[in-house]
Amino acid sequence: MTLKMDIKTLSEFVEQVFEQVKGDFTVEDLSEDSLRVRLNVTDKHLRPGGTVSGPSMFALADMAAYYMTLARIGPEALTVTTNCAIDFMRKPAAGADLIAHARLLKLGRQLAVTDVLLFSDGQPKPVARASLTYSIPPQ
Amino acid sequence: MTLKMDIKTLSEFVEQVFEQVKGDFTVEDLSEDSLRVRLNVTDKHLRPGGTVSGPSMFALADMAAYYMTLARIGPEALTVTTNCAIDFMRKPAAGADLIAHARLLKLGRQLAVTDVLLFSDGQPKPVARASLTYSIPPQ
Amino acid sequence: MTLKMDIKTLSEFVEQVFEQVKGDFTVEDLSEDSLRVRLNVTDKHLRPGGTVSGPSMFALADMAAYYMTLARIGPEALTVTTNCAIDFMRKPAAGADLIAHARLLKLGRQLAVTDVLLFSDGQPKPVARASLTYSIPPQ
Amino acid sequence: MTLKMDIKTLSEFVEQVFEQVKGDFTVEDLSEDSLRVRLNVTDKHLRPGGTVSGPSMFALADMAAYYMTLARIGPEALTVTTNCAIDFMRKPAAGADLIAHARLLKLGRQLAVTDVLLFSDGQPKPVARASLTYSIPPQ
Repeated sequence: MTLKMDIKTLSEFVEQVFEQVKGDFTVEDLSEDSLRVRLNVTDKHLRPGGTVSGPSMFALADMAAYYMTLARIGPEALTVTTNCAIDFMRKPAAGADLIAHARLLKLGRQLAVTDVLLFSDGQPKPVARASLTYSIPPQ
Repeated sequence: MTLKMDIKTLSEFVEQVFEQVKGDFTVEDLSEDSLRVRLNVTDKHLRPGGTVSGPSMFALADMAAYYMTLARIGPEALTVTTNCAIDFMRKPAAGADLIAHARLLKLGRQLAVTDVLLFSDGQPKPVARASLTYSIPPQ
Repeated sequence: MTLKMDIKTLSEFVEQVFEQVKGDFTVEDLSEDSLRVRLNVTDKHLRPGGTVSGPSMFALADMAAYYMTLARIGPEALTVTTNCAIDFMRKPAAGADLIAHARLLKLGRQLAVTDVLLFSDGQPKPVARASLTYSIPPQ
Repeated sequence: MTLKMDIKTLSEFVEQVFEQVKGDFTVEDLSEDSLRVRLNVTDKHLRPGGTVSGPSMFALADMAAYYMTLARIGPEALTVTTNCAIDFMRKPAAGADLIAHARLLKLGRQLAVTDVLLFSDGQPKPVARASLTYSIPPQ
């Protein structure tokens, strides 16, 4: 029940593995079963009207679960998403970053399950919720 | 943002609408955006080995979201489930009731979204998580 | 890519493992990647109004995926559901059995994914759709 | 039960509404309850190793359901995704476009439900499956 990576190690590992998302995400808080990560919103994440797009919300939820899982299992790049269920509940605020609050619900030998709530920065009500399953490669 | 039914009114309404489940569920706690409900486990809810079956876990999550939604919109029997995503994470403890903790994440005009965690009574780790969408009939 | 159990062996194995559901389900058709199974509807499966309940629809979808997975991996009772996403789309017809059409989409070493459509017997439009993941025990 | 837009009108409408995705998607086939659409894969859709990323697969499934729904209800830009459940089943082939096969399962007054299978171009087995619900604005 201990973390195998801290915020710095985790962030460096993910930026090295996924060069494409470099600068997009900032892990702001990490504990043994929770994590907060920010999507640094830029034009490429937006829909017309200036709100964050569905695929960008999915990407944030997915990355939040990935960071959370890696923090516990260590630098296993081959850990992959097998399932995601996501509910889009409110329109994100225009011009605001998106913040993901992730909770690790299960860490098994084969599967990790994480719940995520997404908020527009500074807003009290979630814009989306998601649950994600990651498959952990055999040791 | 106020409750339209308290635990007593809510319980009586649901038992009247769903005679089949009479005695199965006990609402133990209710606030504006959360609810705790117990599945009073009997033989019909069990699998071989004495643990609660998947359909019984689904039924509890579904009823928790139904109670939560009704408590806010009032006695609308025609409110129906449109979607459920459920993750089964651990084997329930044998011989224990199942407790659902529901959180209302969104109450819109057409749709209500509720998150549910299920626990074996007295155990700290959830056996399942679910998110459910109810469709609210037009006024 | 061959079946490890035929309809007769499969049905006997499941009735032996799950005595509780004896007589509830009839496998009507089976191929390497598809299966049709009937829920023999009785009073215990109904809601007021005479339509099949949500938990009974979930149970049918879950059993369809279980039969389909077992037919391919053999009699592994410990195969368990890890995830289900289900959409309830139409009210089932009163007084009609429910028919599940399952398609096996993936059979991996650890996970099997099955899609299911549910129909009221004799009706052309599905009442529900579901996708289920089963975790396969290590050999 | 008739189409309100053909491939040309549909494609022009979507490219006008979502300038950001201009050139990314090509609708290749359309009927009253099915649609085939191609993700024209470029570097921005890839992960290290050259395979299509999870968010790009989500985006394709989401757009397939959006095209399918719009083809039936007409040019309603405010139609929005409320829910998606997606299973990632196989690694996409490197250097191949991704093809979505969508089936419209329900078109109600408030909600449309679409099932989607995603394939690497030329491969027989799906890389992912998804089901999506769109909320249709009141007339």
